[in-house]
Amino acid sequence: MMPPIDFWFSIGTAYTYFAVMRLPEIAAEAEVEFRWRPFDIRAIMIEMNDVPFASQPVKAAYMWRDLERRAAKVGLPLRLPIPYPLAEFEQANRVAVIAAREGWCQPYAIATYRRWFVDREPAGSEPNLSASIREAGQEPARVLELANSEGGIQALDAATREAKELGIFGSPSFVIDGELFWGYDRLQDAIDWQRNLDHATPG
Amino acid sequence: MMPPIDFWFSIGTAYTYFAVMRLPEIAAEAEVEFRWRPFDIRAIMIEMNDVPFASQPVKAAYMWRDLERRAAKVGLPLRLPIPYPLAEFEQANRVAVIAAREGWCQPYAIATYRRWFVDREPAGSEPNLSASIREAGQEPARVLELANSEGGIQALDAATREAKELGIFGSPSFVIDGELFWGYDRLQDAIDWQRNLDHATPG
Repeated sequence: MMPPIDFWFSIGTAYTYFAVMRLPEIAAEAEVEFRWRPFDIRAIMIEMNDVPFASQPVKAAYMWRDLERRAAKVGLPLRLPIPYPLAEFEQANRVAVIAAREGWCQPYAIATYRRWFVDREPAGSEPNLSASIREAGQEPARVLELANSEGGIQALDAATREAKELGIFGSPSFVIDGELFWGYDRLQDAIDWQRNLDHATPG
Repeated sequence: MMPPIDFWFSIGTAYTYFAVMRLPEIAAEAEVEFRWRPFDIRAIMIEMNDVPFASQPVKAAYMWRDLERRAAKVGLPLRLPIPYPLAEFEQANRVAVIAAREGWCQPYAIATYRRWFVDREPAGSEPNLSASIREAGQEPARVLELANSEGGIQALDAATREAKELGIFGSPSFVIDGELFWGYDRLQDAIDWQRNLDHATPG
């Protein structure tokens, strides 16, 4: 039995779209289990004094063009321009942390990104927020009360501290056996790493 | 006849190692012609007020680990730690621009990176500099006089301006028909883009 790969992500980063949308299919094909671990990449970047890739106009122009080409290549829908950056980044991720704890993170994150990247509704804000919670089979009022409580704020902070201790500085990141792989482009490397671990297991 | 893919690179960035070392093999396998176009990424980053990836200790630690894993995966030698960053970045690239003009850029860049990443001799400094020029079949005294002349300085500046006008912000980058692909991770995308262009050509 192979250990799961931790999928660390923040709703709000553009390249996380590919990982969120394709992970269920990749998990099934590669027979890999992913553990969805939402955290707050923005808090880590502020602490590192780092700047978002898309804060440079030249890089931003490239990023959207690259996303557009890659989405077309893998057959994912994308309707540019989408709202960016998000105004309610933290709220989107506070809900994701609760969803992960309660076992409905994957459908919530997928609904959130689809509404954001296809329907152009900012993730973390209404109407995307409640609709995505509902699509994951939950009652928005209950979830939002939890997410915006002191406990909800602390749960996202704790996840973010854990990510930081693992050396995470970007979303998405994949962690397997203490090895960090940054970016959707390294997902195959993470899966290969896990396979090699499995082969190294005695017996 | 497919148009060549412009391979824009600066000696001095760590991830450029993979592209420099593997491009001849990839060109032969994919039947693609690459035009080697050295430029000064450092000048562009300073102008953009951008910071090198490895200037953050957390990112630097990740970068070296990622390079180590990927080098092992593709069978490229790498002896960490290597001297980084380079003290004579510009000189390495001024020579590369002359080499590109005169047709010996590929062997010079490969020799430079091999001496840097395997023998730990900083690229652009002696003894790496003269040894790499000599390995490419040239006389160091002649080349270095040219490289350090006003004409040599202007040639690198002109190449860098051209890169900037193409929207280039990192090394390596691949440009085909005005489409920019950033990073060794996008080399296959660039090759695929070229193939689709070819299919679209009438007749």
